[in-house]
Amino acid sequence: MTNKICDLLKIKYPIIQAGMVWVSGGKLAAAASNSGALGLIGAGSMKPELLKEHIIKAQGLTEKPIGINVPLLYHGVEDQIKTALDLGIRIFFTSAGSPKKFTKFLKDEGCIVVHVTSSPLLAKKCEDAGVDAIVAEGFEAGGHNGRDEITTMALIPQVRDAVSIPVIAAGGIADGRQMAAALCLGADAVQIGTRFAVTKESSAHDNFQQAIIKAGFGDTKLMMKEVVPVRLLKNKFYDEVQELENRCASKEELIALLGKGRAKAGMLDGDLEKGELEIGQVSAMIQKSLTCQELVDQLIKQYDQTKSLLASLNLAK
Amino acid sequence: MTNKICDLLKIKYPIIQAGMVWVSGGKLAAAASNSGALGLIGAGSMKPELLKEHIIKAQGLTEKPIGINVPLLYHGVEDQIKTALDLGIRIFFTSAGSPKKFTKFLKDEGCIVVHVTSSPLLAKKCEDAGVDAIVAEGFEAGGHNGRDEITTMALIPQVRDAVSIPVIAAGGIADGRQMAAALCLGADAVQIGTRFAVTKESSAHDNFQQAIIKAGFGDTKLMMKEVVPVRLLKNKFYDEVQELENRCASKEELIALLGKGRAKAGMLDGDLEKGELEIGQVSAMIQKSLTCQELVDQLIKQYDQTKSLLASLNLAK
Repeated sequence: MTNKICDLLKIKYPIIQAGMVWVSGGKLAAAASNSGALGLIGAGSMKPELLKEHIIKAQGLTEKPIGINVPLLYHGVEDQIKTALDLGIRIFFTSAGSPKKFTKFLKDEGCIVVHVTSSPLLAKKCEDAGVDAIVAEGFEAGGHNGRDEITTMALIPQVRDAVSIPVIAAGGIADGRQMAAALCLGADAVQIGTRFAVTKESSAHDNFQQAIIKAGFGDTKLMMKEVVPVRLLKNKFYDEVQELENRCASKEELIALLGKGRAKAGMLDGDLEKGELEIGQVSAMIQKSLTCQELVDQLIKQYDQTKSLLASLNLAK
Repeated sequence: MTNKICDLLKIKYPIIQAGMVWVSGGKLAAAASNSGALGLIGAGSMKPELLKEHIIKAQGLTEKPIGINVPLLYHGVEDQIKTALDLGIRIFFTSAGSPKKFTKFLKDEGCIVVHVTSSPLLAKKCEDAGVDAIVAEGFEAGGHNGRDEITTMALIPQVRDAVSIPVIAAGGIADGRQMAAALCLGADAVQIGTRFAVTKESSAHDNFQQAIIKAGFGDTKLMMKEVVPVRLLKNKFYDEVQELENRCASKEELIALLGKGRAKAGMLDGDLEKGELEIGQVSAMIQKSLTCQELVDQLIKQYDQTKSLLASLNLAK
């Protein structure tokens, strides 16, 4: 049986390396694509000039297709999209905004469009807007997150039942067992963020990578729900947010504390005290930085073992 | 290959019907056991006399083994345990307390002991205390829940890696896709609450069952974190809790609002306004009340279909 996402995106394995702000530049995207997955440049944190640099870098490192992830809420998104189109990018993962906004335009330009959702209702709207596939992301995922707090386990079957286009599961997937589980839930593929952040080719600062490796069970939490929910690794900045939230501080106070540049400071520059460290619950499962090729090989090997294990269990006796 | 939980509990399918306060009496436990699962009486809400009635009722309805779930935090737990032992119960699921408290005593009485956890650290403590298996329950589960907010997808592989005794996954499991996913994650079996609450044999009031059936996506939320985290269906009582939490009310105010008897009022007596309705995220997936036999047959059929689907996908090409 063929896989719909492998066919759609012309990739070997149904694995998407998530576009992550400050973490997934051209180097990571190229390495992920070279490993048999689809690599995405996280354009959310990039001005058009920087995005151009990263796309050109990636194209120099791989002959395979790469895509970009574009959060639609930022000012200047048209320039990002134009820059990518001019450089030949034809795979767009859009998020944080209406799928109606750019899907038709991108489809008319011959692009594949995938939109990120966290509910079956939005998934249906994406399908109606004409996207090729959707990413459905659960509560356990790192970074920005939905308001309904629905986990991957509960989310994917509901999204699967709501649409007929392919579904990519995201949130809580770091190993081959979780990949197999996501496919059982009805997903056609998986999108993996946190685990790809801790790779040799990721632009996550080494301090940040080490902090993820050291992270234990329960060391991330979904915060800033009054502003926009975001899953953070616990550090000094997290403590400050927690303190404000414990006394029901206003949205304005939270926005003032957040200020500007904290995600870059933490994730790219490695400031583990002041930085905003966006990462998922599976941080606790990561013991080592790997190359993308090692990671993908490990995922597929464990996926195959899991599949065999499930096949060997005969319940209907 | 044999299944460790089926062998341990002498059941046909690796499915446990969760012990739920006010919902799982003798009738539900017997029907679940007759259907090939293991039925549990939720003793948490029962005085010894009532527990005795329910055990005798269950024993009159099935020849298969049943178990009881005993939260260890309540006053009078010794009497509950003694009552159950005297009536021949030899399967105990303990929760909400230290696994050291009763495990040795129960093992000396020839019982099988399973303890409920929400972290790999506590799972290891359970193993060290000599339990036969553990239930690992994720954030999406109904009712009382762990403080770390770790989802089933992220939790089960970590618990699997932490212990060598069998693991039963709970939280977010209502259909055969989710059951197969849980087994991929490393669980040996699943514990299902919410889906068994909406059965013909459940003692959940019809009003409550209808409310679960009507519930849509995002209609439950984990609340009362200052007291003890509990996942509730949104209703008037929920709104009142939300209002207190929005203004950072004290723990004492929350306890005063909760008062006494709200869970019984909502779940057994069907008061949908004042009642506390403890239920999981998968409420949104439930469309109909079934008999236990219909439910178990459906679970196994869809589990087998999912297994075949996974087997038909060949990724390593």
